[in-house]
Order: sequence, then C-alpha cells, then structure tokens
Amino acid sequence: MPVNKAFVLASRPSGMPSADNFRLIETPVPEPGEGQVVVRHHFLSVDPYMRSRMNAGGSYAEPQAIDAVMLGGTVGEIVASRHKRFKVGEIVVNYGGWQLYALSDGSDLNKVERRSFPLSVYLGAVGMPGVTAWYGINRILKPKAGETVAVSAATGAVGSVVGQLARRAGARTVGIAGGSEKCAYATRELGYDACIDHRATNFAEQLAAAVPKGIDGLFENVGGEPFKQCMSHLNDFARVAICGLIASYNGAPTTLPDMRIVLVKRATIQGFIVSDDMSIWPAALGELGGLADKGELKYRETITEGLERTPDAFIGLLNGRNFGKQIVKLA
Amino acid sequence: MPVNKAFVLASRPSGMPSADNFRLIETPVPEPGEGQVVVRHHFLSVDPYMRSRMNAGGSYAEPQAIDAVMLGGTVGEIVASRHKRFKVGEIVVNYGGWQLYALSDGSDLNKVERRSFPLSVYLGAVGMPGVTAWYGINRILKPKAGETVAVSAATGAVGSVVGQLARRAGARTVGIAGGSEKCAYATRELGYDACIDHRATNFAEQLAAAVPKGIDGLFENVGGEPFKQCMSHLNDFARVAICGLIASYNGAPTTLPDMRIVLVKRATIQGFIVSDDMSIWPAALGELGGLADKGELKYRETITEGLERTPDAFIGLLNGRNFGKQIVKLA
Repeated sequence: MPVNKAFVLASRPSGMPSADNFRLIETPVPEPGEGQVVVRHHFLSVDPYMRSRMNAGGSYAEPQAIDAVMLGGTVGEIVASRHKRFKVGEIVVNYGGWQLYALSDGSDLNKVERRSFPLSVYLGAVGMPGVTAWYGINRILKPKAGETVAVSAATGAVGSVVGQLARRAGARTVGIAGGSEKCAYATRELGYDACIDHRATNFAEQLAAAVPKGIDGLFENVGGEPFKQCMSHLNDFARVAICGLIASYNGAPTTLPDMRIVLVKRATIQGFIVSDDMSIWPAALGELGGLADKGELKYRETITEGLERTPDAFIGLLNGRNFGKQIVKLA
Repeated sequence: MPVNKAFVLASRPSGMPSADNFRLIETPVPEPGEGQVVVRHHFLSVDPYMRSRMNAGGSYAEPQAIDAVMLGGTVGEIVASRHKRFKVGEIVVNYGGWQLYALSDGSDLNKVERRSFPLSVYLGAVGMPGVTAWYGINRILKPKAGETVAVSAATGAVGSVVGQLARRAGARTVGIAGGSEKCAYATRELGYDACIDHRATNFAEQLAAAVPKGIDGLFENVGGEPFKQCMSHLNDFARVAICGLIASYNGAPTTLPDMRIVLVKRATIQGFIVSDDMSIWPAALGELGGLADKGELKYRETITEGLERTPDAFIGLLNGRNFGKQIVKLA
C-alpha cells in the first residue's frame, strides 16, 4: 500500500525556524470518496509567507495549526478520481501542503495545461509569485515609460517578474539582491538596468548612483535598511507596494524613520496580498503563461529533491540561500 | 499717502519660530498699473504649512525667501482696479501674504460671493482647509456607513470639516484633540461620536475604547505618539490620509515603528497636498459653501486682531493655542 509522507508543524519558532519545528509523519495514501480526487504532487513551493503563518497570530491569515500538515502551494497530477470534473492524468495547481499526496473535493484545484515550460513554473512565474508581481505592477506601481522602479529581492520568484514587467512598461529598473552572483543574473538575464548588492558596505552610495532621477515605484519584498534607503529617494507621487518584509520576519521590525517623506512626496504606500482579489488571477495568469510559453519571461529555480529536505529548503529560503524560486521536487 | 505694512522672513528658525524670525516693514500702498488691481486684505490665514516653508529646503514647495513677504492666504476687497475683470468693491480670495495690501495682475485672484457667513470662512471651512478635508474624505478615505474614521486635530480648520463630512457619510467619527474644552466642542458641536484628549495619560486606553471595531479611515494632521496608537488599530484595507505632521515640524520625526502593519492589514497610506489637484476645487467649494450657507457646516475661528500680532498668532497655532481656524483680522 502506498505511503503518504507529510510534514506537520511540531512547534512554533521564535526567530529563525529550525528543523525540529517540523515533524515528518507517514499515513496511508487516502482513497477518494464519491466526489473526491487524490492528487500526487510533483512540486511543492516554499515561500516566505509560511514563516508568518507559523506564528501564533498577528498576521493577515489564520496561523498554521500545530500538528496539522504545513500549508503550501503544489502542482501535481490526478492519480485517482471519483469526481466528474477531474480525470486521472490531468494536471492541477492546489494548496496541497508539505506532503506527497492530497485528498480533495475539487474546490481547491485549478486545472492547468502542459505547456513548453516545466510544471514547477506554475508555482513561480506563472503562479502565485507571478500574479503577485503582476498585481503590484498593474494595480499599485503602474510604471510609465521613463520612470524608475526599484525592486528588492530582485531575482526572487516575485521580484524577477516585477523587474521584467516594469521593464516591458518602459521603466528604468533597479534591482536589489544579495550577492554579486544574483546581481549579475539580474542585469544579464532579467534585464535590470542596474542591480545593487544589499550586502555592499557602500550600498547607499551605489543606490543613489543607480537612481539618478529618483524612484517612482518601489516594490518591496524585504524591508530593513535597504528599504529605508529607497524611501529616501522617492519622487513626487511615488508608489510603494509592500509585498513582503522578509528581513523583519525573524527579527527587528522595519521602521519608517520619518513619515514626512510620505507627506512631502505625496507618496502612496500600499500593502497587499495577492489572494485578496481573485478576480485578477485569470488575466494575470493568461498574460504570464503566454509570455513564459513564448520564452519571453525568464525565471530561475532552485530545486531541492525530496520531501524530506523541505525544512532545509525553507530555512535556506529565509536565509537567502536560494537563487530564484525555491521549489521542492516530490515526484 | 496710505501705508502698507508687511512681515518679511528675517531669519530661518531652528525648531519653534520666535518673533525675531519676522520683521515688520512699511512701504507705500502700490498704485495699480494697467491690468493690475490692489487688494485690501480683510483677513489673513496662518497655517501650519508655513512652518515647513520657513526651512531652507526639503519640503514639497519652494522655501519662503528671506526678506520676502511671508506667504499666506488672504481674503479682501478690490480697492483700486485697472483690470477689466475686477471692479472696486468685489471680494477676492488670494495668496496675498502677511500684509495689508497686495498688488495683483488678477491671475492669483478668485472672486467669491458675500454669503450668510463672514468672509473669514473663505480661509477656513470654505477655503483651503475645507477643500483639504473634502479631498481626504472623497479621494482617500472614502468612508462607508458603519466604518470608523479617526481624525487628529479634530477641531482644527481641516479636522473639523473632516469629522463633519465623515459623519455625513455615515461613519462613526472619533476625534483626537488637545484638552477637554476642544474635546467637548468636538462631540457637542461638531458631532463626533467620541473625542480623546491626546494629553491624557491613558490616551491609549481611551482610544482603544473609542474604536471598538477598529479604524477604517485615519485622517492624520499631527503625527507623533497618537498617530502610532491609531495605526495599531487599523482594520483590513484601512486608508490613512497624511495631511500634516505638525507634531514633527519643530522636533522629533514621526516614525512608523513597524511597516508590518501596512502589509498585514493591506493598508494604504497616502500623503497629499490639496493644491496638487486644482480640478477638485470647484466641486469641493461648491459643496462646502452650500453647506455653510445653510448653516449645516459648523466652524470655529480664533481671530487675532491686527497685522502686528500675526507672528504671535502663528506661534500660538504651532503650540495648539488656537481653537478652530486661526485668522488674523486686518481690516
């Protein structure tokens, strides 16, 4: 009898999670009841938002329950079906969690096509991270040709799409990333006009040099000191999309040292969660899927092999060890 | 020959201005050339924004020049005209500055009617402060019936209109003001559901009790600790209009201690200056003038008599000594 393996949350971390916050369990693969399907996951996504969910409260969503399977986005194949809308062999994107198999009544499944890109991309550039980028660009930053857009975590799953969409809109794009390898990738592959290593001792000077006409749009994934530096370069009527503050998840909060910049620049700062407006998903996925299928949307993945290594992949993500979208390959 | 008296900026203050930052000068009242008029000012407005203009730079507008007449909004009467659009005796609103008379080519003059309210109201509830309130309510906060709107400087020239417009939209309105007299005025006259004295030692507890369903709209005129307390009560999708940060103009900046609130609540924080969008002025002034004419818009003024006392009135304003719109009566 096939075995399902899953990670549950064993305990809540304070600060950086460690392997013992998770516990691997084994259960029989479920049999679908009437109106149910079983999905065999091919790929699992690990994302920064999971860290906030591990806290007991205070985030925008329900906390991850102790002893429940860790939540997470997955893409997989129907391997058993007693549901009239789903056939064995079809590919679906779901929130199946950190496990090999998921039982579903179909309500959380989105069918996708096999296209020219690997299925894992449905968890990245043509999935939730891509739609997040699309929302920030199209609904908040709205960059115009000639404007300057700055993007933190510029080579990450979200940031890499932000940079490419901003560039397609005609903006000058300035990335911020950790390390020279990522910065080189940002400019050579993703088309950023400049990319600055946030670990550089002269980060502030480099940023100032990279945004000679100031910043009109800031897509913030990280927070911390680079965010504050970016805020000091805002132009009149600048837009700031707060998508993530990964630098703050495990430590000191990101502050805004002087609210006057918002007033003086008549800036708008908007926090958003892409799941708040599901109405945009079809348009966003349509555009991103089309670009990726034609090879016009670049992406990079760090693929970790095997469910057992999911905690390592997640902790690595929080430490910036991944390069591009962090994926766990399950099948 | 009649004499014009005017205050010029003698020196830039650091921190709170004092009387010696201003110098009174006397000049002959100008004669209008062809296409010019002379306005005799009846009332002068002193406003917090003047403090930022006194700095050498870093604000959204050109700094007030040293030895130039202090800028300021005025309402007055045409006393001499060689301009075909303006007749002697007509009433105009202008930016005539801290002086008794102004020479103009007409381009900066807006004719207004004599209505049931005093002309000074064109500098307050039916002037720039009123339009500021209207913009914040209609373009940023957009309060819905049943929502909660918090307003700092709740009895001031802007705040008093914000509170009344929010209440007309069906929102619960919570004011923040300095002292029990202002708070009593806020609830008894302006219709606030509650008003909290920001000087109270248990301000945080009082605020929490006054916003049992959280804050959906925050109209910020002041900044400082009360602002931070309000931010901690934001609801999902809250809107924050940053109109002024008067608490910071002379001292420590207002910080946002943790940007996570913006992300977690998907909040929008928007700074604005009412002069950025002149297109809204006719609609705003039309609505506010109609309400005031019918007695449906309450306002309160602190009127200081005589140009010579303008610096005192201005410094008093920065110290919160005024009650309602601070006006200087010049004629």
